[in-house]
Amino acid sequence: MSAERSAPPRRAPSPSIGSIYAPVQGQLARVDDRLRGLVKVEFSYLSGLLDHVLESKGKRVRPVITLLAASFHPNDGKNAEIMAAAVELLHIATLIHDDTVDNSALRRGKATVSNLWGKDIAVVLGDYLFATSATFVCDTGNIRVIRRFAETIMELSSGELHEMVVAHDPKQTRDQYLERIYDKTASLFTTASESGALLSGASEETATALKKYGYNLGMAFQIVDDILDFEGNAQDVGKPVGSDLLHGLMTLPALLYAEGHPGDGLVQDAVASRGDAKALDTALRAIAASPAVGKAYAVAEDYGQKALVCLGGLPDIPARGSLEDMVAYVLTRRA
Amino acid sequence: MSAERSAPPRRAPSPSIGSIYAPVQGQLARVDDRLRGLVKVEFSYLSGLLDHVLESKGKRVRPVITLLAASFHPNDGKNAEIMAAAVELLHIATLIHDDTVDNSALRRGKATVSNLWGKDIAVVLGDYLFATSATFVCDTGNIRVIRRFAETIMELSSGELHEMVVAHDPKQTRDQYLERIYDKTASLFTTASESGALLSGASEETATALKKYGYNLGMAFQIVDDILDFEGNAQDVGKPVGSDLLHGLMTLPALLYAEGHPGDGLVQDAVASRGDAKALDTALRAIAASPAVGKAYAVAEDYGQKALVCLGGLPDIPARGSLEDMVAYVLTRRA
Repeated sequence: MSAERSAPPRRAPSPSIGSIYAPVQGQLARVDDRLRGLVKVEFSYLSGLLDHVLESKGKRVRPVITLLAASFHPNDGKNAEIMAAAVELLHIATLIHDDTVDNSALRRGKATVSNLWGKDIAVVLGDYLFATSATFVCDTGNIRVIRRFAETIMELSSGELHEMVVAHDPKQTRDQYLERIYDKTASLFTTASESGALLSGASEETATALKKYGYNLGMAFQIVDDILDFEGNAQDVGKPVGSDLLHGLMTLPALLYAEGHPGDGLVQDAVASRGDAKALDTALRAIAASPAVGKAYAVAEDYGQKALVCLGGLPDIPARGSLEDMVAYVLTRRA
Repeated sequence: MSAERSAPPRRAPSPSIGSIYAPVQGQLARVDDRLRGLVKVEFSYLSGLLDHVLESKGKRVRPVITLLAASFHPNDGKNAEIMAAAVELLHIATLIHDDTVDNSALRRGKATVSNLWGKDIAVVLGDYLFATSATFVCDTGNIRVIRRFAETIMELSSGELHEMVVAHDPKQTRDQYLERIYDKTASLFTTASESGALLSGASEETATALKKYGYNLGMAFQIVDDILDFEGNAQDVGKPVGSDLLHGLMTLPALLYAEGHPGDGLVQDAVASRGDAKALDTALRAIAASPAVGKAYAVAEDYGQKALVCLGGLPDIPARGSLEDMVAYVLTRRA
């Protein structure tokens, strides 16, 4: 595919993760320690499972957002660190169940829990981590944040259920897609940023601005994720290219292609074919040769722009610069 | 099997559920309404799933315990009702994941979610209900109760994981069993009773007494459950007799048989055989012909006795009578 794809417009060099994380580096190390500390449970089998899932640290975008969002009001940062750990742990739990349901063999290029230990273990381990993340949030003592966290888990599972229900349906719509990516991704980004602000003691106005920032960043993040499924290479992304279409899901590039080519039915055939290699390949080539990916990228950029606008009223401290750079990072990332 | 089994000693007629529930009947109806209200979600597919899992009401032992435990201190009962709904919903979520992991086709004689809609849907629906139950608990506004609730989910999943890890291991011990049934069952009973007391505003002393009551009742409940797996009939219990042994699990009757017959290895062979019908049948017949089931029942009675002792210092109101009768009900139930 790579030779034929129409490259979407890309910004100048992506800000480095290191520079984005700089204002909260010390805190992030403590968040990592807190998560690694979970491995120390008496039940040795569980300890081994936790070691596997907590070993690869991932990009930790969500906890960093929480820590940065907690930087606009003087506070000791303790609750933000607890919340950041909870947010990352919830994300990990979600990935374990998603990989189980999606039969994914690899995650970040590493074998998934369901692949290594089977689906049943993955279900129970995911439950354990959902609950553990909830105990973390309880430690913040903030009921509003705790409730929002529980609602986020409802939205995450509702999004996953939506995905399963629409899979292989050739009549998927852009509205369904946007609702689904809110549930799947932007919900937790929203919670990550809003809860950081609330736990820092920031004003409602600041918390609302950061909540909206999280929403727009999360939408952009998922759209870019879906674009990478079309144009990334398997090694970077850690899963096969075109896997959404293979699983019967029409993400934004596919939807935009279908909207632009109402007659040819290629995308519809691919999702309805339930994995037919030829139908899939034909659709992937058609999408790559069309402006659909570039258009999808423009939608992501639009969300990114809105995220930046949300930061407009905040004081110009290093954390704000990092949140701004995070937008550029999310839009330009290749994996 | 039934013709050959050695009947365990049974108390006189079981108190009726109706008389036990009488002091909290109005509240229980509101708890049922709250749970049924969950069906009203916009997402019609989810609504259909919720309708299926909330249709059969079950015995509702756990929410009734919460309501009764909240009756020892003057209060408007609202938080106890919310908590009772949360406790029942958590139980339902757990059953959905347990049935998924255990490949159970039937629950209360009705097809399971995993059987009807597949394992993947069941995983996500369980997640949704875990999270929904957590939002209910958040509505009580009591952080201590919320935290205990999250810990309970950790214990429930840890118990399920323990079960999966020891399955088919011929070296299972009574200590492992007792730890597992605490995690699996007594943990939620403990939370149900303690949280009812705490939310009513009862003293720490009363809350501790009711917490211990819940623990002992829960242990008795699970042991009787495990006995019913040996001697109940499939129609009453809603699953095949001997299913624990079939799944490689040594419950108390099997463990007591093995302790009493260190040489014959019948139980060990049955669990290690991974479903060999002959090995299973031989072990089931040997256990039924031995005093093991009666001895297991004596252990359950001992926990029941301890549960009654915990109630000793509480005022003699109808709710206390119901909690006492609940012990007799749990010990004499046939399904």
